[in-house]
Amino acid sequence: MKTLIVYAHPEPKSLNGSLKDLAVSVLESAGHDVRVSDLYAMNWKAVVDAADFGPHASSPLNVALNSGWAFDAGELTLDVRAEQEKLLWADTIVFQFPLWWYAMPAILKGWVDRVFTYHFAYGVGEHSDVKYGERFGEGTLAGRKALLSVTAGGPESHYAARGINGPIDDLLFPIQHGILYYPGIEVLPPFVLYGTDRMTEDDYADVAKAWEQRLLTIESTEPIPYRRQNFGDYEIPSLHLKEGLEPAGRSGFGLHVDG
Amino acid sequence: MKTLIVYAHPEPKSLNGSLKDLAVSVLESAGHDVRVSDLYAMNWKAVVDAADFGPHASSPLNVALNSGWAFDAGELTLDVRAEQEKLLWADTIVFQFPLWWYAMPAILKGWVDRVFTYHFAYGVGEHSDVKYGERFGEGTLAGRKALLSVTAGGPESHYAARGINGPIDDLLFPIQHGILYYPGIEVLPPFVLYGTDRMTEDDYADVAKAWEQRLLTIESTEPIPYRRQNFGDYEIPSLHLKEGLEPAGRSGFGLHVDG
Repeated sequence: MKTLIVYAHPEPKSLNGSLKDLAVSVLESAGHDVRVSDLYAMNWKAVVDAADFGPHASSPLNVALNSGWAFDAGELTLDVRAEQEKLLWADTIVFQFPLWWYAMPAILKGWVDRVFTYHFAYGVGEHSDVKYGERFGEGTLAGRKALLSVTAGGPESHYAARGINGPIDDLLFPIQHGILYYPGIEVLPPFVLYGTDRMTEDDYADVAKAWEQRLLTIESTEPIPYRRQNFGDYEIPSLHLKEGLEPAGRSGFGLHVDG
Repeated sequence: MKTLIVYAHPEPKSLNGSLKDLAVSVLESAGHDVRVSDLYAMNWKAVVDAADFGPHASSPLNVALNSGWAFDAGELTLDVRAEQEKLLWADTIVFQFPLWWYAMPAILKGWVDRVFTYHFAYGVGEHSDVKYGERFGEGTLAGRKALLSVTAGGPESHYAARGINGPIDDLLFPIQHGILYYPGIEVLPPFVLYGTDRMTEDDYADVAKAWEQRLLTIESTEPIPYRRQNFGDYEIPSLHLKEGLEPAGRSGFGLHVDG
């Protein structure tokens, strides 16, 4: 495998830092190629602005269109182009981050906002009344797999089906489906650690063993069976899921999982 | 009303910029006090790091604990303290932002990550086996109302109950419930504009009228009836919603809405 690890935590000695280091060593020891985007160490620019789009950015700025024009012209900034190249190089992408306020840390959201440009990650393929792009199962990054490795401070029960935070699968849906599956990446079930606020050094051995096991079985793990946009499951042009495809009682984000 | 507008868009002449400007003028004309946090104009630092926590940040850094210690000691950076003071001043908070990759722009997520510190927005009240804090209906920001004003590039049908993006209420739940209701803010139904990628100048008059109408009725609008954590609806300590409280067939995030 050629694995890109995108890692977002300010403290190298944190649990997230340890899990990232472990992933590098486990994967390299198994003979895989590994590259790491350590966003804090890179001092990653988190905020989209006109400076991202080269000398020909329009005024007023249109973020989507300008990102596409700059992508087409090869005028995106070097940092963004390097990340796009890493994504094209990789066949597997691991994201290591803490869940802060039920979502990615800002630095990682800024990686998405800046790297997933128009014409690269969206606005790909025909957009018309009969087709709304190559996305959700097709796109620039098709053929790749992603795996989220996420730490959550609160206890697992809070993230269960009836838990007060909402189900973890639903909290991660906008990332897994909305960001990763959108440009064509298949998404493996996430590796989630709960209760990390109260985790002790003694707990780490078991955590490390579980993470190593997940890393070494990436190639044999089935992705989440999200429904592909352009293969008959959705009405055109509304992109409503056709009636009757889902199991009885299924609703919400779960509709878009086939199984 | 004392209204804080938190605004996140890099282009003043954008639709988001126009909606922010309109909110200021409509609310001020109606006699309300308005303050604006224009995150791009402020060059808001989006990324949490040790520099946020004053001279006594620990090494290794623990983001949650350090943010709480710095809050308690009055050693948070001036920019963060100013935003916390604005939140305490306001009785109403309007958020104006585009939905980028189904979530807030990184600069706004970074405002949350940095301003919503431990002991200010979370880690408030007793945390034990019989109570897990004052949150979800109680907390530092109780008594305040929030209103999201969001623009989405794609068509409304894609965000409907069966739409491929998932329902807009579910996409906004981690913000509305997870970020805003958590420290006690009541959340009004959002103002969402769809299809903004294809919106023309001619459409703006109707949009402006609808937004003005929402702004002028904030005080009489009922908030989303999220369930309060500590008033009998949840099992302790699992914080599972008690069985049988929800309408038949309700699941997922919707469980936490009473009605």
